[in-house]
Amino acid sequence: MRLVKAVVAYDGTAFSGWQIQKTGATVQGVIHKALHQIHGRPVRTVAASRTDTGVHAEGQVIHFESESRLTDAKLKRALNYHLPPAVAVRSLVSLKSKFHARYGAKAKLYRYVIYTGRTKPVFERPHVWWLPHRLDAAAMRRAARHLTGRHDFTSFSTPGEEEKNRVRTIFRLSVLKKGQSIVIEAKADGFLYNMVRIIVGTLVQAGNGKIRPEDIPAMLAAKDRRKAGPTAAPQGLRLIKVYY
Amino acid sequence: MRLVKAVVAYDGTAFSGWQIQKTGATVQGVIHKALHQIHGRPVRTVAASRTDTGVHAEGQVIHFESESRLTDAKLKRALNYHLPPAVAVRSLVSLKSKFHARYGAKAKLYRYVIYTGRTKPVFERPHVWWLPHRLDAAAMRRAARHLTGRHDFTSFSTPGEEEKNRVRTIFRLSVLKKGQSIVIEAKADGFLYNMVRIIVGTLVQAGNGKIRPEDIPAMLAAKDRRKAGPTAAPQGLRLIKVYY
Repeated sequence: MRLVKAVVAYDGTAFSGWQIQKTGATVQGVIHKALHQIHGRPVRTVAASRTDTGVHAEGQVIHFESESRLTDAKLKRALNYHLPPAVAVRSLVSLKSKFHARYGAKAKLYRYVIYTGRTKPVFERPHVWWLPHRLDAAAMRRAARHLTGRHDFTSFSTPGEEEKNRVRTIFRLSVLKKGQSIVIEAKADGFLYNMVRIIVGTLVQAGNGKIRPEDIPAMLAAKDRRKAGPTAAPQGLRLIKVYY
Repeated sequence: MRLVKAVVAYDGTAFSGWQIQKTGATVQGVIHKALHQIHGRPVRTVAASRTDTGVHAEGQVIHFESESRLTDAKLKRALNYHLPPAVAVRSLVSLKSKFHARYGAKAKLYRYVIYTGRTKPVFERPHVWWLPHRLDAAAMRRAARHLTGRHDFTSFSTPGEEEKNRVRTIFRLSVLKKGQSIVIEAKADGFLYNMVRIIVGTLVQAGNGKIRPEDIPAMLAAKDRRKAGPTAAPQGLRLIKVYY
């Protein structure tokens, strides 16, 4: 029995999110199926982040216990052979020390892409949020500065999951203009449910003048979801990296 | 009644090609449906190129006759409103002179993308041909040189359609290495059925050493489909521009 850590990339378009469910294809579901085929019996995985329907990943991290005698390289190859084209194992390594993909994570980096061009992005549409409006990136950056650091992000999360401690630290929240796209990167020690997407939705309101960057501190202080902006579309979001 | 020319872009992934069929969604099918909704009656279109299943377009050109009183800008907007996310009208203009999207075309430019990286391209997979092997771009370029110019391309087309004249002129056939991708662009006065994809399949054989670039002239001279390389996968192909 060995503990395996793997980095997984996926296009979330056709999946009902990461987490296995009774109905609908999920990323965890196809990975479990591949692991079952290789091991001849069920193998459970734990992921760093349970991404939502339509959300993508370049660097999702998972762990699982394996009784396979395959080398790491061969286990990786076998997995990629059994996985559908939208899911890939980028790297795989057996660990001697304890490792927990979810609880061991020190920080995560997410990227969000907004496409502001006027013409429908027929090729990139499953990977961007299309907002054919002018957005003031400088105002978005000023708003982002108010969100950076250690805050209670209750206003910036969808209620439901009973998370007691809603204080998180955002190490970096950058807003970059790249051609007709706006790329937002958020690195934090953790994220509440829908936190990146609500932050993006709120930054967009700063970008189109619906709110002022200076309104952010009051939003945070209110600890009330209704005070922040809308939840941005899932398909613009991508889990880039998990830090341990 | 007016004659309308439109430039259309589409992601061909979910379509059974351009041309309307009895079963399966086609790009022409969804455009006809949108035109029907706008005009209240059927409107037929003619396209410059009848792209195959899985093939994409950035600059497909179509024409149709319209009785709509909408301005060009409003007709374009109405079409885009009724079209699915994977299809977009890029530009639309009413013409006073005669115009035929297919027979008036003087040249067409296609682009083909091969991804040679070792890791499965989970995001780009519907838009590239994934060949995780080293390809010698210089050899491919030398092979391309033998195809450029005026030739009988019988060996480089799928038989079927009874096209009498199989002489075409390739104005440009470029092979460009871009990171881990190889981008092939072909501009010609016309293309036979599957011609770009068979050219790409043959260039790949030159790139992996299965044939020598100097073998191309004999392939052309044979006028026999079996002498050329395999047909490259459809999803790497994109119609970029039609010249009139």
